[in-house]
Amino acid sequence: MTGVIAVLNGPNLNLLGEREPHIYGAETLADVQERCRRAADAAGFAVECRQSNHEGALIDAVQELRHSAGFVVNLGAYTHTSIALRDALAAVSGPVIEVHISNVHARESFRHLSYVAPLATAVIAGCGTLGYEFAIATIAARVHLAGGA
Amino acid sequence: MTGVIAVLNGPNLNLLGEREPHIYGAETLADVQERCRRAADAAGFAVECRQSNHEGALIDAVQELRHSAGFVVNLGAYTHTSIALRDALAAVSGPVIEVHISNVHARESFRHLSYVAPLATAVIAGCGTLGYEFAIATIAARVHLAGGA
Amino acid sequence: MTGVIAVLNGPNLNLLGEREPHIYGAETLADVQERCRRAADAAGFAVECRQSNHEGALIDAVQELRHSAGFVVNLGAYTHTSIALRDALAAVSGPVIEVHISNVHARESFRHLSYVAPLATAVIAGCGTLGYEFAIATIAARVHLAGGA
Amino acid sequence: MTGVIAVLNGPNLNLLGEREPHIYGAETLADVQERCRRAADAAGFAVECRQSNHEGALIDAVQELRHSAGFVVNLGAYTHTSIALRDALAAVSGPVIEVHISNVHARESFRHLSYVAPLATAVIAGCGTLGYEFAIATIAARVHLAGGA
Amino acid sequence: MTGVIAVLNGPNLNLLGEREPHIYGAETLADVQERCRRAADAAGFAVECRQSNHEGALIDAVQELRHSAGFVVNLGAYTHTSIALRDALAAVSGPVIEVHISNVHARESFRHLSYVAPLATAVIAGCGTLGYEFAIATIAARVHLAGGA
Amino acid sequence: MTGVIAVLNGPNLNLLGEREPHIYGAETLADVQERCRRAADAAGFAVECRQSNHEGALIDAVQELRHSAGFVVNLGAYTHTSIALRDALAAVSGPVIEVHISNVHARESFRHLSYVAPLATAVIAGCGTLGYEFAIATIAARVHLAGGA
Amino acid sequence: MTGVIAVLNGPNLNLLGEREPHIYGAETLADVQERCRRAADAAGFAVECRQSNHEGALIDAVQELRHSAGFVVNLGAYTHTSIALRDALAAVSGPVIEVHISNVHARESFRHLSYVAPLATAVIAGCGTLGYEFAIATIAARVHLAGGA
Amino acid sequence: MTGVIAVLNGPNLNLLGEREPHIYGAETLADVQERCRRAADAAGFAVECRQSNHEGALIDAVQELRHSAGFVVNLGAYTHTSIALRDALAAVSGPVIEVHISNVHARESFRHLSYVAPLATAVIAGCGTLGYEFAIATIAARVHLAGGA
Amino acid sequence: MTGVIAVLNGPNLNLLGEREPHIYGAETLADVQERCRRAADAAGFAVECRQSNHEGALIDAVQELRHSAGFVVNLGAYTHTSIALRDALAAVSGPVIEVHISNVHARESFRHLSYVAPLATAVIAGCGTLGYEFAIATIAARVHLAGGA
Amino acid sequence: MTGVIAVLNGPNLNLLGEREPHIYGAETLADVQERCRRAADAAGFAVECRQSNHEGALIDAVQELRHSAGFVVNLGAYTHTSIALRDALAAVSGPVIEVHISNVHARESFRHLSYVAPLATAVIAGCGTLGYEFAIATIAARVHLAGGA
Amino acid sequence: MTGVIAVLNGPNLNLLGEREPHIYGAETLADVQERCRRAADAAGFAVECRQSNHEGALIDAVQELRHSAGFVVNLGAYTHTSIALRDALAAVSGPVIEVHISNVHARESFRHLSYVAPLATAVIAGCGTLGYEFAIATIAARVHLAGGA
Amino acid sequence: MTGVIAVLNGPNLNLLGEREPHIYGAETLADVQERCRRAADAAGFAVECRQSNHEGALIDAVQELRHSAGFVVNLGAYTHTSIALRDALAAVSGPVIEVHISNVHARESFRHLSYVAPLATAVIAGCGTLGYEFAIATIAARVHLAGGA
Repeated sequence: MTGVIAVLNGPNLNLLGEREPHIYGAETLADVQERCRRAADAAGFAVECRQSNHEGALIDAVQELRHSAGFVVNLGAYTHTSIALRDALAAVSGPVIEVHISNVHARESFRHLSYVAPLATAVIAGCGTLGYEFAIATIAARVHLAGGA
Repeated sequence: MTGVIAVLNGPNLNLLGEREPHIYGAETLADVQERCRRAADAAGFAVECRQSNHEGALIDAVQELRHSAGFVVNLGAYTHTSIALRDALAAVSGPVIEVHISNVHARESFRHLSYVAPLATAVIAGCGTLGYEFAIATIAARVHLAGGA
Repeated sequence: MTGVIAVLNGPNLNLLGEREPHIYGAETLADVQERCRRAADAAGFAVECRQSNHEGALIDAVQELRHSAGFVVNLGAYTHTSIALRDALAAVSGPVIEVHISNVHARESFRHLSYVAPLATAVIAGCGTLGYEFAIATIAARVHLAGGA
Repeated sequence: MTGVIAVLNGPNLNLLGEREPHIYGAETLADVQERCRRAADAAGFAVECRQSNHEGALIDAVQELRHSAGFVVNLGAYTHTSIALRDALAAVSGPVIEVHISNVHARESFRHLSYVAPLATAVIAGCGTLGYEFAIATIAARVHLAGGA
Repeated sequence: MTGVIAVLNGPNLNLLGEREPHIYGAETLADVQERCRRAADAAGFAVECRQSNHEGALIDAVQELRHSAGFVVNLGAYTHTSIALRDALAAVSGPVIEVHISNVHARESFRHLSYVAPLATAVIAGCGTLGYEFAIATIAARVHLAGGA
Repeated sequence: MTGVIAVLNGPNLNLLGEREPHIYGAETLADVQERCRRAADAAGFAVECRQSNHEGALIDAVQELRHSAGFVVNLGAYTHTSIALRDALAAVSGPVIEVHISNVHARESFRHLSYVAPLATAVIAGCGTLGYEFAIATIAARVHLAGGA
Repeated sequence: MTGVIAVLNGPNLNLLGEREPHIYGAETLADVQERCRRAADAAGFAVECRQSNHEGALIDAVQELRHSAGFVVNLGAYTHTSIALRDALAAVSGPVIEVHISNVHARESFRHLSYVAPLATAVIAGCGTLGYEFAIATIAARVHLAGGA
Repeated sequence: MTGVIAVLNGPNLNLLGEREPHIYGAETLADVQERCRRAADAAGFAVECRQSNHEGALIDAVQELRHSAGFVVNLGAYTHTSIALRDALAAVSGPVIEVHISNVHARESFRHLSYVAPLATAVIAGCGTLGYEFAIATIAARVHLAGGA
Repeated sequence: MTGVIAVLNGPNLNLLGEREPHIYGAETLADVQERCRRAADAAGFAVECRQSNHEGALIDAVQELRHSAGFVVNLGAYTHTSIALRDALAAVSGPVIEVHISNVHARESFRHLSYVAPLATAVIAGCGTLGYEFAIATIAARVHLAGGA
Repeated sequence: MTGVIAVLNGPNLNLLGEREPHIYGAETLADVQERCRRAADAAGFAVECRQSNHEGALIDAVQELRHSAGFVVNLGAYTHTSIALRDALAAVSGPVIEVHISNVHARESFRHLSYVAPLATAVIAGCGTLGYEFAIATIAARVHLAGGA
Repeated sequence: MTGVIAVLNGPNLNLLGEREPHIYGAETLADVQERCRRAADAAGFAVECRQSNHEGALIDAVQELRHSAGFVVNLGAYTHTSIALRDALAAVSGPVIEVHISNVHARESFRHLSYVAPLATAVIAGCGTLGYEFAIATIAARVHLAGGA
Repeated sequence: MTGVIAVLNGPNLNLLGEREPHIYGAETLADVQERCRRAADAAGFAVECRQSNHEGALIDAVQELRHSAGFVVNLGAYTHTSIALRDALAAVSGPVIEVHISNVHARESFRHLSYVAPLATAVIAGCGTLGYEFAIATIAARVHLAGGA
C-alpha cells in the first residue's frame, strides 16, 4: 500500500462547471482535482487523478493504481451500468469511497442502482464537491487507524 | 432560521457502542452527540440532539425543531419504513442530511429504500461517526453560502 | 353503538394550515374539528376528536372508541404503512370512512396503497376539508338506515 | 365556463337498481340523475346527464361538454381501461370528480387502477349514490371559491 | 329464463374465413352461426346471434339478452381488455361459455389473460368452430340438469 | 399412427366422485373412462386409459403410448408444475387435448399456468366430464380430416 | 392493392389544434389531412382519411380499407389499449406506419406500450405533423420498390 | 444470561378474547400470560410479560430485557412492518421464537412477510395459544442443551 | 375419524441424522418416528408413519390415510413444489400440521413458499424434532375439543 | 448554434450493408452518410458524420460537437445500455433525433428500452435509411421555425 | 470416496436419439453411457449409469451413490422444477457437474432456471454428448488435484 | 471460413492469476492462451488471442476476426451488460462458445443474465481453464462434422 490516493472521475465529468450547472455547480474538474490535492496533502497523502469517458480506460486506471492507499470514485453514469468496473474495483487493496456531486437518490430511478456501492466502504451523495474531501478524510482515517500511510 | 442544527437519532441508536460493534463501532451515542457539538461549534452553530425508539416521538421532535438551520438525521430502521417521518421532514425549512454509520447499500435489500433520501440534500453512508461531522459541515457550507447563521 | 362519531387524525395533521398549504389548505386542525362538530350536530351526533403523531396512540384511541357509531379517519402517512391500525379498525363496530384532504391518487405511488381502504365503507380523497363533512353524512345515512343513533 | 355541471355515467350503469343490487343499491339511474339535478339546483347549477355503454360515445360527450363548470364522472369499468377517456377529460376546463357507488378499493385488484384519478380533483368511492351529491357540492365550492357560476 | 341461447361474436370475427385462415379456418361467420343454430335446435333451443366490432354494442347486446338460457361468447380481443363486458356478463342469469377458435394459450402472452374466464362456467379454446357446438351442448346439459328449457 | 386414443388422468383423479364433489361432480374415474370408451367407439376409435399419482409413471405412459392417434390428458396438478410431462407430450405424434373438469381459470392463480397448453391442440375447462367427450370428438375430427383412423 | 393510402386518426385527434397545443401544435385535423393529401399526391397516391373516437368504428374502417396500398395510423390512446385494433391491422395487406405527433417515449409510462408497433413497418414519434408526410413517403418507397402503385 | 424468558405481545393483542374470536379464540391476554407463567415455571424459568400497541415501547422492552434467556414474541402486525423491532431483536443474546395464534400463512398476503423470521430460531403459527407453550419449551430445550438456566 | 395420527416425511428425510446435521440435527428418522409414537401414545392416539422420496407415493399415502384423526407432514422440498400433494391433503378430514425441522423462513427464498400452508391448521418451523411433538399435541387438542378420539 | 448537423452512428453500423442485410438493407455506412450530406445540403446545413464501436469515443464526439444545430443519432445497441451517452446528449443545445433503421419495437424486448428517447425530440424506427433524411428534415424544420441556421 | 463416477440421466432421456433429434442428436442413451464409460476408463474411473423418468427414483439413486467420486447429472426437465433433487445432491461428497446436450440458455425461459446449478461445480450446455466427456474430465482433474481416485 | 479459432478475453482477465485467485485460479492469461494454442494445434487449428478491457476494442476484434472458424469468448462482465458485443457476435460465421472460468450460475444474480448465451452454440462455466480446451474441442468437432478446417 502506497501513500497515494487515486481519484477517478468518469464520463462527462470533464465538462464539470459547464454541463447542467444547476445540478453540478460551477467548479471545473481541475478545481475539484486541486481541492482533492489540498485535502490529501493536509492528511499526508498524494493524489493521482484520472478522468475518462471510456469505461475501458477507467478499468485500465483502476488496475494500474490498484495498490493505492484508497480510491475516491465518481464513476458518473458507469456507476449504474458497469459490472466490469465493479469487478476491477473488487481487486483493489484499499478502501473505495463512492462520491456523487448531486443526490442521485433524488433523481431518476435508474440512478438508484450502483454496482459499486455493495463493495464500497462508503457512499457520499449530494454534498457537492465537498464530497471528495469527505471521501479523502474517510480514507485517511481508515488508513491511520490501521497504522498505514 | 436559527443558528441551531438539529441532530436526530432513531431506533436502537441509544445502544450505540454496545449493539453489533463490528458494524457500528465502539463510540456511544453520547460520544457521537459530543462529536456533533464540537463540529457545529467550530462552524458557529449550536446543536440540539434527540434520540428516540418511538416514530411518533421523532415526528414530534421534527415538528418542534422545524425552524432549525438544518437537520442531521440518522433515522435507523425508520428510514426504510416511515412515510410519516418523511412527511414531517418535508415541512422543515433548512437542509436535511441523511446519515448512516454503516454502508446500508451493502446490506440487506430492504435497507436500500429510503423514504427520506428523495427530499434530502445529501446522503452519507458508511463513513462511521465521521458522517455526522460531514453532515454538519455540509449544512454549514450551505447556510454560509446563503448568507445565513 | 353510541351516538358518538370518532374523528381521528394521524401524523402531521396537527400542523394543518401551516405545513404545505398549497396542498392541504389554510384551515387548522381546530377548524376541521369544529367543522366536524357542526356537521355531526346537524345529523344528531356528537364527535370525539383525536390527533396523534404516534401510531400506538392512534391504536389506543381506536380501541377506546371502538363502540362509536362510526369512524372518520385521516391516518395521514400511516394509511400506507400501518397494518396494526388496520387490525385495530377491523374490530370496530360501526362504519369506517377514510378521508384524505388532498387527492392521494394523484401523488407519489407509495400513497396509492391504503391498508385501511379494503375494510372501509368509503374512501373520500381530494375534497379538501369538506371530505370530513361528507364522511359524517355518510355515517349518519348508514346509521339512520339501520335505525340507529 | 358555463353554469352547467356534466354528469357522466359509463357502462352498465343504465342497469342501476337491477344489476347486483347488493353492491350498487336499489336506486335506478333516473333516480340518481334526479338526485344530481336537485343537488345542483340547490347550488345554483344546472346538470347535463349522459350515460352510455360505448367508450367512444362517452368521449364524444366529454368533448361536447368540455366547457362545463365541472364534471361528475362514474365511468364504470372504463375507469380502469380507458386512456382515451382520460385524454378527453384532460382537456376539460373545470374540475373533474371521480365517483364510484361501491368502494372499488375493496374489490378485485384490477379495479384499483384508475386512469382518471391522477388528473381528477377528487375521488369518492363507497358513499353510494350520495357520492354524486358530494361531487356536485365539491365542484360548487371550487367554482364559488374562484368567483365562478 | 327463456329457451334461447345467445351467441355473441366480437371484433374481427365478421371476417372469419377470410382473415388469417391458417389460424381461424375457412368457415365464415354465417357458417358458424348456422352451425350453432343446428346444434341448439337438436338440443331444443333457439339461438340469437350477434356480432359487432364495437365493445359498447356488445355490452348493449348482453344487457338486452341477459335473460337468455345461456351465453356462448367469443369476444375476440375484447376478452383480454374489456372489464366492461365482464361486468355486463356478471349480470346475466344463465351459464356463460367462453369460446376461442384457436388455442389462445399457445399464442402471445397478452392473449392469456381473460377478464371473462373467472366468471364463466367453462372455457373452450382450440377446438375450431366445433367449440361453439360444445358450448351449446354444455349449456343444454346444465339447463336440463336444472330442469330448465 | 394407430386407431387408439390415449386417455391419461393425473394425481388425485382416482378419487373422482369422492373428493370435493362440489367442484368435481359425482362421477367416478371408472364412469369417466367408460364415457370415453363409448365416445371413442362411436367415432371409430379404441381408448387406452391410464391414471397415476406418480409423475414418472405418467411420463412412462406417454412414452409407451406415443404413437396413439391422439391424447386426452387431464394431468391434474401436474399441469401446473411438470415440465417433464410437457417434454414427454412434445414427442407424441397425434393431437393433445388438455381437459379439466372444473374451470381452472376461475380458481387459484397457480392453476392458471399450464406447461402443456402451449403445445396442446386445444384446452377444455369447466365442461365437467363432458369435456372428455369433446376432446375425443376433436381428435376424431382432426384425424378424419387428415384421412386417418 | 389499390393506389389509395388510408390515413386513420383515433380518439381526441378531432380536437387537434385546440386541445393541449403545447403538446400537439396548432394545426387542425383538417390541416393534417390536407397535408397528407398533398404528400400522397406528390407520390402518386390518393388518400382516404378517417377519424373516430370509437374503437369499433376504427376497426370497421380498417376492415373496409384493408386492401389499401398502406396505412398511416395515429390511433391516439387506443395505441396502448386496443388489441382488437391490432388484430384488425394484422389483416391488412400493405405496410402500416404508426405515427404520433408528440414523442410518446418521453411521456407517461403507459404510453410506452403499443400493441400496433410489433406488426407495424415503422414507428415515427415526435416529428409533429411532419410525421404523417414521412409515413406516406415510407409507404410510397416500399410500394415503388415492390413495383406497385 | 438470566433465568427469565421475555414474552412480548404486540398491537391489538390486549383485546385478545374480544376481538375477532373466530380467528383468535376466547382466551384473554391475561389467560395467555398465566399459561406462559405455568409453562415456564415447569421448565425452571420465570417469565417477564409485556404488551404494547406502541412500536417504540416494544423496542424499549426488547432493549431492557435483551439479556433474558430467550424471547417469545407475538408482534402482531408489527411482524410485517417493523424493521426497527427486527434490529432490536437482532441484538438479544438468547433464542427468539416468533408465535402467531392464527395461521398467518393462510391469511392476506401482506401477513406472509415477517421481518423477524429470518433471525428467529423458530416460527410457530396456527397452534392457538398452545403456541406460546411450545415456544417456551423450545427455549428451555435450547438453554438446557447449552447447559444454561 | 379414527384414533390414528398420520406422520408423513418427504424426500431426503430418510437420511436424517446423516445429511447436513448442522441444519437438521443428529436424530435419525427412526428416532423421530419413535418420538412421535410416544407423544401420540401419551395423548391417546396411535401413529402411522410413512416416508418416501417419491411425490406419487406420498400422494398414495395421503389418500390411503385420509380418514385419520390428523396429519403431521414434513414434506421436505415437495412443500415448495407440489400442488398435487396439496390437492391430496385438501381432501383429508382432520387437521393438517406442517412441520419443518429447520427454520425455513431463514433459508433460501424458494423455501418460503409452501403450497400446503394455506390449507394447514398450523405451521411449525425451526423447533427441531420437538416440532413433531408439538404438532401431535395440537391435533390432540383439536380432536379433544371436538369431542373426538 | 452552428449550421452543422451531427450524424452519429454507433457500434456495428460500420458493417452496414454486410451484416444481417435482411434486417438492415444493402446500403453501406458511406452511402448513408452521403444520403445525409445531400439531405442536409438541400436544407442549408452541413453534416459532420462520426461512427465508432467505442462508447467512450461516441461520448467524446457528442461533447466535441455539442454546439451543433442538431444531432441525428443511431446509437445501435448503446441506445439500450448507455446512460453515459444519454448524459452527454442531455448537454447538447440543439434537437436530438433518435433513428433506427429497423423497427426495434418489433424485435427482442431488450431493444424496447431507450435511455435516449425520453430526452430526444423525436424517434424514427423502421423507415430504413430514409429515417436519417426524415431526422434531418425534422431538425431543419425546428431550426427554421426558431429562425436559426 | 470411491473410484466410481455416477452418471444420472433424467426424464425423457431414455428416448435419446428418437425424440426431437434436431435438438438432441441421433445418439441413443446407450451410446452416451458407453461414451461415458470409455472416457472414465481413460481417466482411471468406473461409471455407474442410471436413468429414470421418476423424480423419486433419481433421488433414491443420488442417495445410494452419494459417496461416489463425482456426479455427472443431466436431470432433464427436473433441473428446472426439483428442489428435492437439489437437496439430495447437496449431500453428496464429490463434485457435481450439470450437463445439458442442447444449449438451454437459448430455449424457453423456464429452462433458464436450474435449482442444481448454484451448488454444482460446473455447468456445460450445448456441447452435445461431448458434454458428458467434458464433465468426466472435469471431475477427474479435480479428484487428481486432490490426490484422490 | 479459415483454420483459425479466435479466443477473446474481456475485462479484468488480463489480471488472471493475480485477481481473486480463490475464484479464478493461479494460471495467468498467458498460460490460458498457451493452453488454447496447444489444444487448437492438436485439433489442426491455429488460434488468434485477444484481450481488452475496452468494450469497443472487443467489438473491433470480433468484426476483424468474424470469418474465423469459431469463437471462444470469455467476455467477463461484458457478458452481462453488452448488447453491442452480442450484435457483433451475431454476425460471425462460425460457432461461438461462451466460457466462464468460475460457475457464474452460483454467484450474484446479475451474473446469471448473458446477452451472448442465446446465440451461442454452447456455454461452459465452472470448469476452470479446462473450459477453454473444451470450447476448442467443441468447435473442432463441429467444423470437422461440417467437413471444414
